[in-house]
Amino acid sequence: MIEYYDVSGCYVLRPWSYAIWEEIQEWFDKEIKKLGVRNCYFPIFVSQGALEREKEHIADFAPEVAWVTRAGQSEMAEPIAIRPTSETVMYPSYAKWVQSHRDLPIRLNQWCNVVRWEFKHPTPFLRTREFLWNEGHTAFATAKEAEAEVFQILDLYAKIYTDLLAIPVVKGRKSEKEKFAGAAFTTTCEAYVPCNGRGIQGATSHHLGQNFSRMFDISFEDSGSGGKEYAWQNSWGMSTRTIGAVVIIHGDDNGLVLPPRIAVIQMIVIPVGITAQTSAEDRKMIIDKAEQITEILTDNGIRAESDLRENVSPGWKFNHWELKGVPVRVEVGPKDIAKSQVICVIRCSGEKRPVLLKNLSQSAKAMLDEIHSNMYERVAAARRAHTKLTVNWDEFKKYLDMKFQLLSPFCGLPSCEELIKAESAREESVQLGAAAMGAKTLCIPFDQPTDPLPQRCIHPSCKEPAKSWALFGRSY
Amino acid sequence: MIEYYDVSGCYVLRPWSYAIWEEIQEWFDKEIKKLGVRNCYFPIFVSQGALEREKEHIADFAPEVAWVTRAGQSEMAEPIAIRPTSETVMYPSYAKWVQSHRDLPIRLNQWCNVVRWEFKHPTPFLRTREFLWNEGHTAFATAKEAEAEVFQILDLYAKIYTDLLAIPVVKGRKSEKEKFAGAAFTTTCEAYVPCNGRGIQGATSHHLGQNFSRMFDISFEDSGSGGKEYAWQNSWGMSTRTIGAVVIIHGDDNGLVLPPRIAVIQMIVIPVGITAQTSAEDRKMIIDKAEQITEILTDNGIRAESDLRENVSPGWKFNHWELKGVPVRVEVGPKDIAKSQVICVIRCSGEKRPVLLKNLSQSAKAMLDEIHSNMYERVAAARRAHTKLTVNWDEFKKYLDMKFQLLSPFCGLPSCEELIKAESAREESVQLGAAAMGAKTLCIPFDQPTDPLPQRCIHPSCKEPAKSWALFGRSY
Repeated sequence: MIEYYDVSGCYVLRPWSYAIWEEIQEWFDKEIKKLGVRNCYFPIFVSQGALEREKEHIADFAPEVAWVTRAGQSEMAEPIAIRPTSETVMYPSYAKWVQSHRDLPIRLNQWCNVVRWEFKHPTPFLRTREFLWNEGHTAFATAKEAEAEVFQILDLYAKIYTDLLAIPVVKGRKSEKEKFAGAAFTTTCEAYVPCNGRGIQGATSHHLGQNFSRMFDISFEDSGSGGKEYAWQNSWGMSTRTIGAVVIIHGDDNGLVLPPRIAVIQMIVIPVGITAQTSAEDRKMIIDKAEQITEILTDNGIRAESDLRENVSPGWKFNHWELKGVPVRVEVGPKDIAKSQVICVIRCSGEKRPVLLKNLSQSAKAMLDEIHSNMYERVAAARRAHTKLTVNWDEFKKYLDMKFQLLSPFCGLPSCEELIKAESAREESVQLGAAAMGAKTLCIPFDQPTDPLPQRCIHPSCKEPAKSWALFGRSY
Repeated sequence: MIEYYDVSGCYVLRPWSYAIWEEIQEWFDKEIKKLGVRNCYFPIFVSQGALEREKEHIADFAPEVAWVTRAGQSEMAEPIAIRPTSETVMYPSYAKWVQSHRDLPIRLNQWCNVVRWEFKHPTPFLRTREFLWNEGHTAFATAKEAEAEVFQILDLYAKIYTDLLAIPVVKGRKSEKEKFAGAAFTTTCEAYVPCNGRGIQGATSHHLGQNFSRMFDISFEDSGSGGKEYAWQNSWGMSTRTIGAVVIIHGDDNGLVLPPRIAVIQMIVIPVGITAQTSAEDRKMIIDKAEQITEILTDNGIRAESDLRENVSPGWKFNHWELKGVPVRVEVGPKDIAKSQVICVIRCSGEKRPVLLKNLSQSAKAMLDEIHSNMYERVAAARRAHTKLTVNWDEFKKYLDMKFQLLSPFCGLPSCEELIKAESAREESVQLGAAAMGAKTLCIPFDQPTDPLPQRCIHPSCKEPAKSWALFGRSY
């Protein structure tokens, strides 16, 4: 999946992981084009002036901005920043392009790299100093149109998780503390990691209101009053962190487990039962059969390959493809051929399922869909079993340490969220690292519990009224 | 196509130009995957140690390398370079991955941005400090396999020009002076710009021999002797400069002229002949017809759109789409409808061609192919008319100033090429800029003239024997 690299916080995305990204890209790119979004490319560099235009925004990003100060042997007159995100890169152009309401909407997207020089401990895919993402930046004449798009895009992001990656997500709004710097509000889809109970932010879709359009003067003449109107903007992004979510959520002790819809190889066909005693004729018959089966599968739209290498044993191949997470291994041996069948070994469950050759083309697609559903359901079940609704602070802390996510009443104040985080951290946190972190809000779920909302926020010293149920948990 | 930007040498690729890049990407990506190449992503940052490992290579790139020295407020312990190209980024990983000849070939590609902080005057697409490209990096057990791939890839690059962009190219080998720093040899396809006679390097495919594999220790045990063998490597790249070639080669006084196969909109349908006197019924009939025609076209695989805006006149629309280079404008008015026809106006020639509606679906595809051929042939004819074979130095200089490319005998020595360049520059070069530059070799064409090669090199003071005919010219 990755290779380590000699610049700290940077990793190589090898073809096996990059191909997952390509599958996700292809799907999302097609969907946003249907909505009328078009792709473009803005420079990676930002001048200091543009970067610092929106104060709230830059305050959040400034500590992590990488600066280019030298070219060849020449010191630059002014340092140039590398984009941590492209609001400040793109919006000066938007200001030029928008004169009249007829110039709106602008709906652009780019697939690119961004750099955030984090000083926290790096983790492949999940916290890297450079990462790949898509960033959509749109501007509308009305708040209503802009807000509608925020949720349209969030739904597409959620679908990537549920329909491609077999990962359930909770959709919701970020708290004031956790929202994107400079946004009016941020929506998110949040995944749950069964092995450690932590949350992963899946992708975010922000409504920027008129914050940036005022700072960058993206304005037009109001058709009614003739006065100056500012555009209503959104930005939305999803990164290669999605690959990390797949690895950590579905992986097991034997390695990766790839959800079938994004697996580069969905079925790997392996000839078995060839020994030193096998006649050349039988050997050829088995190999031919393996190739024939691979062809049946690919003809039926399955991404299948056969592993016919002679210098490694079938057992070695089993381990190899198991480690790489291929959803189904198809074993073809002399006994199976005699019975006109193959053995399908399902990666996520270990199940060995004989399938008659005459049924193979028909059942292969169904098997992949079944695997998708099972993988999804397994994570969903773990999440359900580890989500606790509580109004009690001690219970909150107790369940947090049992890898739960908590649904609790929340006042919405950043200061209170700080307190919750600090006081839900375990005392031995220095030793335990992430496992001892305090809880933060993952989101305010759109789908609120039906239980009546208590009057008070979950934190015992908070005197504010609860505004909504929030989903709390440790997170990446 | 582009928007200017406040960091010098950087430009915004707007959707109209980026879409051309997407078409090229899609085609090339599919072709290399058929060859077994897989995509991946390596970091944008290079440590100083890795960057400087291959001396010849870094000597060429060092003056243009951008260095990151600061993150947030912290000075970095060691400056980190931004990739100008990724040999030095990727090959340390290749060294880890290659242990046995069974680990070869490695055939990887990435689509990414690179940065070369040039101090020459920037030009959109053609000389930009950041650009997008593909870079393929492959390693083989034998020189023979590697060399075969160099030409396979060059052929794909040439096909992008000839088959997608309608631009003829000359394939050949770069001179010693012009080859890629660190390569054993560089192959190239070179285009000709009719309006100024300059050459544009289209894309290059390099055989690196064992230069980098020795420096980075990409080695394996030789299966015969048991000794250490170094891998044979290639790298190959094509950048967003291709878009620039389209703009400058096909464009005319009325703006862009897009070759049909990469045009986002191949045919734009515009209702005409609607006046203040037109009845609501007739107006609806014309609009409906325009939409119906657009549907016929899209159903036949043509990328067609209709421009039904009511706030601008047909004349305004004609100019608008002409400027944007759409290959065919389809006019639909009451007179045409009465004759069951449309008027197709061909961008590259200005020809107005009535087409009966019943023939439209059939003739539209053929019309685009015809346009492609005509655009190609026009450039090819200009190139033929401005290519001069000469063995005479005065004639060489005279024709160079008449926007010719020259086929002349050449010794191959870098020192002689320097001399040719210096002495073919016009004296008033400071004022005239590029138009007065001296000639360099564009390539040593694979397809050599049949004329007998003279004994001496073209430069009168050169005492070396001519080794081949070289194509000389001013270039971008």
